[in-house]
Amino acid sequence: MPNPFFKNKGPIKISEISNILNLKIDNYNTNQLVEDIRDLYSSGKNDISFFHSKKYIDVAKITKATFCITTEALKNYLPKSCRTLIVENVLVSTSIVTANFYPESINDTFDETCENINQTIFKDKVKFGKNVLIGKNVSIGSNCLIGHNSIIEKNTVIGNNCFIGSNCIIRNTLIKDNVKILDNCVIGKHGFGFFPNKKKNLRYPHIGAVIIGDNCEIGCGSTIDRGSMSDTIIGKNTFLDNQIHVAHNVKIGQNSIIAGQVGIAGSSILGENVKIGGQAGISGHLKIGNNVEIGGGSGVIRDIPDNSKVMGYPAKNIREFLKENK
Amino acid sequence: MPNPFFKNKGPIKISEISNILNLKIDNYNTNQLVEDIRDLYSSGKNDISFFHSKKYIDVAKITKATFCITTEALKNYLPKSCRTLIVENVLVSTSIVTANFYPESINDTFDETCENINQTIFKDKVKFGKNVLIGKNVSIGSNCLIGHNSIIEKNTVIGNNCFIGSNCIIRNTLIKDNVKILDNCVIGKHGFGFFPNKKKNLRYPHIGAVIIGDNCEIGCGSTIDRGSMSDTIIGKNTFLDNQIHVAHNVKIGQNSIIAGQVGIAGSSILGENVKIGGQAGISGHLKIGNNVEIGGGSGVIRDIPDNSKVMGYPAKNIREFLKENK
Amino acid sequence: MPNPFFKNKGPIKISEISNILNLKIDNYNTNQLVEDIRDLYSSGKNDISFFHSKKYIDVAKITKATFCITTEALKNYLPKSCRTLIVENVLVSTSIVTANFYPESINDTFDETCENINQTIFKDKVKFGKNVLIGKNVSIGSNCLIGHNSIIEKNTVIGNNCFIGSNCIIRNTLIKDNVKILDNCVIGKHGFGFFPNKKKNLRYPHIGAVIIGDNCEIGCGSTIDRGSMSDTIIGKNTFLDNQIHVAHNVKIGQNSIIAGQVGIAGSSILGENVKIGGQAGISGHLKIGNNVEIGGGSGVIRDIPDNSKVMGYPAKNIREFLKENK
Repeated sequence: MPNPFFKNKGPIKISEISNILNLKIDNYNTNQLVEDIRDLYSSGKNDISFFHSKKYIDVAKITKATFCITTEALKNYLPKSCRTLIVENVLVSTSIVTANFYPESINDTFDETCENINQTIFKDKVKFGKNVLIGKNVSIGSNCLIGHNSIIEKNTVIGNNCFIGSNCIIRNTLIKDNVKILDNCVIGKHGFGFFPNKKKNLRYPHIGAVIIGDNCEIGCGSTIDRGSMSDTIIGKNTFLDNQIHVAHNVKIGQNSIIAGQVGIAGSSILGENVKIGGQAGISGHLKIGNNVEIGGGSGVIRDIPDNSKVMGYPAKNIREFLKENK
Repeated sequence: MPNPFFKNKGPIKISEISNILNLKIDNYNTNQLVEDIRDLYSSGKNDISFFHSKKYIDVAKITKATFCITTEALKNYLPKSCRTLIVENVLVSTSIVTANFYPESINDTFDETCENINQTIFKDKVKFGKNVLIGKNVSIGSNCLIGHNSIIEKNTVIGNNCFIGSNCIIRNTLIKDNVKILDNCVIGKHGFGFFPNKKKNLRYPHIGAVIIGDNCEIGCGSTIDRGSMSDTIIGKNTFLDNQIHVAHNVKIGQNSIIAGQVGIAGSSILGENVKIGGQAGISGHLKIGNNVEIGGGSGVIRDIPDNSKVMGYPAKNIREFLKENK
Repeated sequence: MPNPFFKNKGPIKISEISNILNLKIDNYNTNQLVEDIRDLYSSGKNDISFFHSKKYIDVAKITKATFCITTEALKNYLPKSCRTLIVENVLVSTSIVTANFYPESINDTFDETCENINQTIFKDKVKFGKNVLIGKNVSIGSNCLIGHNSIIEKNTVIGNNCFIGSNCIIRNTLIKDNVKILDNCVIGKHGFGFFPNKKKNLRYPHIGAVIIGDNCEIGCGSTIDRGSMSDTIIGKNTFLDNQIHVAHNVKIGQNSIIAGQVGIAGSSILGENVKIGGQAGISGHLKIGNNVEIGGGSGVIRDIPDNSKVMGYPAKNIREFLKENK
């Protein structure tokens, strides 16, 4: 599936990619066209992929990518049909190449394509407040409301019976049916992802989206960042309270309830029917099971299995926590 | 006292209420009119009330309500003059009936009654920025300022000498004199209250208001939700810093000082002269006494008596906390 | 150097200052003009200073201030050339006098000088969204973008190649080159500084600025307050994630990385290359060294030396924390 929101500037000649990375590729056909950049698993013929960790050896062995950015140490795991671009830092090089395919995914400057809703086709279809702006590549279902001063930036799909509050800013987001986004939310902006560099940090591209399921509610002043290589997902019928921050690539299961000021760091995956008390924080890259309850104020720094109740910092079994802190 | 902000759509025939709840009421006069829904204490003749817990037996025994939503187990505590509607879940049924009396209290979609302040009677009375919007049922005292892009939605009363910042959204709020609301606040929206349901969560009505006393200051980016059946109250001369969240039904006493990013969960009651350090969190339904000091970062999960100083998570005596953590 | 942003309403006659403080100054030339109020170190001839604590004896002894607000107990440390105004509470009196020199530094009401950018000299120089407002005493470098609904209030300097998001409010701020301020930020407003008083809290002036170095990025929904007597400073190439609060007078060194929902209380000073995990909080008036790493959720209540890694509440050595909490 092509990226639904970001326009692929490819194909790009392999010689050009090689140049961008300051490499020499002598014995290839330098006019060969590369169509897209994708992970090892989903790459196809004429795509370029990246392979940076032994964790991915199994999928590397069978990738269909025609080209792959990798290291001297890893290159021999790739099939012979795959031509390698040997670099020092695979992620930095991948980021640079991705930026060339998807230049619009790096910087989230304001959407210049926005027009007042009165000048758009949504004028008669949507009920809206004053000063509402709509960007390009936006679709809005039937029976929707959009509050005052809200900005529906480019690459936003809104389903039926949705309500967007006032002062909201949304882009690169797929909103299903019966969803409520309350006032002052910022949804779909790039996440906090970059390579630190003392001269000037290097932002990496965010080509993912935010997906918000049916019947969800997002509280006032919340921020939900879009994914980098995958999507940020809020499962259906999940309710978020005010001032919540959901970082890039996070997935939250359906029927979950998340109280005010909670923060969920990047790439963590939460199951269904999860309940989180106010101000709790969840570290990045964790797996939180189904039916998990996390007490208010907790700091979760480890995976949590299904059906657990935890509290504390770091979060532990809630009975233990309360017993130790009578 | 009738509800100051929400319009009562009653009277409603008891037969209609019965229908809404899928009940049969054979032996009543089904044309009898019910005027309002109120708690057991304040209900009068021709009102409907609700009785869901043994905690309220004493007041149930003497309620003046003509009708009462309750359970088989509790019904005999009510006076004979009170006719019962027997349901499985009293709170869910009460929520449904309340929603019929006060349909506007369920969903806080944007206020369509808003007009640019230049088209209102406040044009010459108030000093205001660009793009200020004013809804219906708004009153503003003398010598007030309202910043750019702010939206004073319906059902807002602002006293004298008040300053509302820019990008604020306010509704269902009673603001006394000399109050400052800084930029980007959202005040008076419904709280995070609903009955979880795997198909689709059921929001319950919020028919309360936010009341902000004389001389208060509310910091940038804060959210204060209105009450459900009671009001959310900030006592006079209380100062809130930036990015604070005050949930529904919370009451904060006068002369209190609350630092940045604090969160106070629903229905907690704080005394006078309370000082709370940054990022502290207070669980719901707690009672915090007068002159209490809560250290920054604390997580308060139990009531705190007058004149205590606490810190930690869970919060305990501050000396003990610091001694244990030298 | 005169204050770059706040207009000095001086000179003020010493007799007038004396009156404001309810003092009698019999044996002075009551027509003598006082030009500015400054700290003991930077005061010059014809300035008034303040001396409230023995910590400052050394600098008090050699101050060049012509006048000084101080106490009976401290007055004899000052040089004979310095004439004293003896008060009970030096800071309150200093605040009152400062307010007379810099009346605009007390209340941050909305900027009435703002005009739509289309009516300003920036119309052709800056790329901007809808409804952008610009105040007086604003300068903007080349190649800048300003998003929809943003308000660049008075006393703002923006360098070259900067991007300001949508719905931002900025004043009293000096932004260097290549800086990105993302959506919904409020920057440069006065901090949470006042003298508590049961009748009506007394705000003290904030005559400092916010300074944001080259290549910085400030995440969505963040608030950065300007300094009271000094500046709030974000060092170059430092990145802040979403929903961060930086209080007045805080200084953050260069190349630092601060994750979402972090709060830094007033006057704390952070070194270079500091990394702070999500939701961590740092108390006021602390010194955090260079190359310090602070784990997510930590509560820092003591100084931290260079090159330390800490975690916990209160924060301690991270290995110790993790060992104790296996």
